[in-house]
Amino acid sequence: MKQVSTISDIRSGVAELRAAGKTIAFVPTMGALHEGHLSLMRLAKQKADEVVVSIYVNPTQFGPNEDFDSYPRQMEKDLKACEEEGVSVVFTPNDKIMYGSGERYFGISIDELNEDMDGGSRPSFFEGIALVVNKLFNIIEPDVAVFGQKDIQQFQILSRMVEEFNHDIELVAAPIARANDGLALSSRNAYLSDKERKIAPGLYRALQYVEKQIRDGVDEPKLLLKHQQDELEAKGFKNDYLNVFSMDNMQPVQKLEPGTTYILAGAAYLGKTRLIDNIILDL
Amino acid sequence: MKQVSTISDIRSGVAELRAAGKTIAFVPTMGALHEGHLSLMRLAKQKADEVVVSIYVNPTQFGPNEDFDSYPRQMEKDLKACEEEGVSVVFTPNDKIMYGSGERYFGISIDELNEDMDGGSRPSFFEGIALVVNKLFNIIEPDVAVFGQKDIQQFQILSRMVEEFNHDIELVAAPIARANDGLALSSRNAYLSDKERKIAPGLYRALQYVEKQIRDGVDEPKLLLKHQQDELEAKGFKNDYLNVFSMDNMQPVQKLEPGTTYILAGAAYLGKTRLIDNIILDL
Repeated sequence: MKQVSTISDIRSGVAELRAAGKTIAFVPTMGALHEGHLSLMRLAKQKADEVVVSIYVNPTQFGPNEDFDSYPRQMEKDLKACEEEGVSVVFTPNDKIMYGSGERYFGISIDELNEDMDGGSRPSFFEGIALVVNKLFNIIEPDVAVFGQKDIQQFQILSRMVEEFNHDIELVAAPIARANDGLALSSRNAYLSDKERKIAPGLYRALQYVEKQIRDGVDEPKLLLKHQQDELEAKGFKNDYLNVFSMDNMQPVQKLEPGTTYILAGAAYLGKTRLIDNIILDL
Repeated sequence: MKQVSTISDIRSGVAELRAAGKTIAFVPTMGALHEGHLSLMRLAKQKADEVVVSIYVNPTQFGPNEDFDSYPRQMEKDLKACEEEGVSVVFTPNDKIMYGSGERYFGISIDELNEDMDGGSRPSFFEGIALVVNKLFNIIEPDVAVFGQKDIQQFQILSRMVEEFNHDIELVAAPIARANDGLALSSRNAYLSDKERKIAPGLYRALQYVEKQIRDGVDEPKLLLKHQQDELEAKGFKNDYLNVFSMDNMQPVQKLEPGTTYILAGAAYLGKTRLIDNIILDL
């Protein structure tokens, strides 16, 4: 496995694989790799000959009061994990390489798709993600890129970017990796105290409960969702959102129609830790 | 020469050239090709093995009261001209192929660089150009792309986009092609009446006059520029701007410093026709 940090080195690394006739699947990460990331790499391996991973904590997707500084960083451990998964090249740029040191004049703007869900709670979050992923796509030019379904709004927004910007890349969503008690794996789970960790699976359980009610026939889930939010608050969560969203435009939906795909998604804080989770509802 | 209109056909066309080990220079145009465009193609031919041209009148770079509908279109004549220049593939998409028929959620925003000059007079002009060129770059993935120095602000903005978005493409500026009397060639010159056509070279003569004064030592050209604007108005022009701009951030400059590169640029209307021209000043 190669580890490279400059753009010219990653381009040569990819060019070598291309020259050998290999297809390339790309897994962009912010490091602090857990079993969820490893499942993305395994799926990537099924989709192409070689896997390229990036490890970069992207400053433009963090708000001023968010956890950029404290975001977990463990490069050596991450590199070892990539090696064990059979990754070919790991790209580990720094901020200067990714964004230069001078003025930044160009931005990517997103309408509607980022107004609600995590975009509603984290202004400019998805524009920062689009900015860095657009760069990474142009640097690496993979055939396939793999993202986690856990960040479903990110996946939908990036799929739309690929379409509108004409990136010649197939995006693949990997299923949510969960702990035995159902908690969606996340690098931010490392922030949880033992007590919070015990409460944390409640978010997924709330989603599962709502899913069951909807599958049993509830088509206007507003009160049901309100009730589950109250339950979560009673357990010690501070709710951000818990709602059903359109798969197309990421807007909240009041009335569910059969034959349609929705996202049932929630975000809630335990202490300072923000947890998200979702279930895709094919009705 | 191949003419193709769909994204999959242009991608196959380019892939065939790539498979034969050829490098590719790309010349994006809005058609209505004149000697200026042909000079771009000839320069492109010097920079790479094969030349790919696009002909597409991009709606997103026209304002609501601009000349999108009346912009000259002459596809057959243009294709013949490309063939005569030894172009390998011409890409002639329609609006549905370039922009789809549904909602558009993604935009490219530009700060500062588009505030003045043509960006000041034509709001969202450069964001429309960036949008379509970013798409074309991702569709064609050339080694080199050739643009005219006549659209110097476009060239500078796209160079910056290539840097910030990490397109792996070298941008090349071709010198301004001029008629015998000095008028910069432009598809919009076709709009000029015989009388206007006779007056039109006055814009370049004004720039040349200012250039000479600056090279002779004028370092605060404000009054000089004002005087030339009055002269242009007296000749029948309606001035938009005539000024010296920073090559770095495209902002107007009051005091010129030796050892610095500036753009001396003007835009003026003759009737409804907007003419632009510029001279690069390496002081």
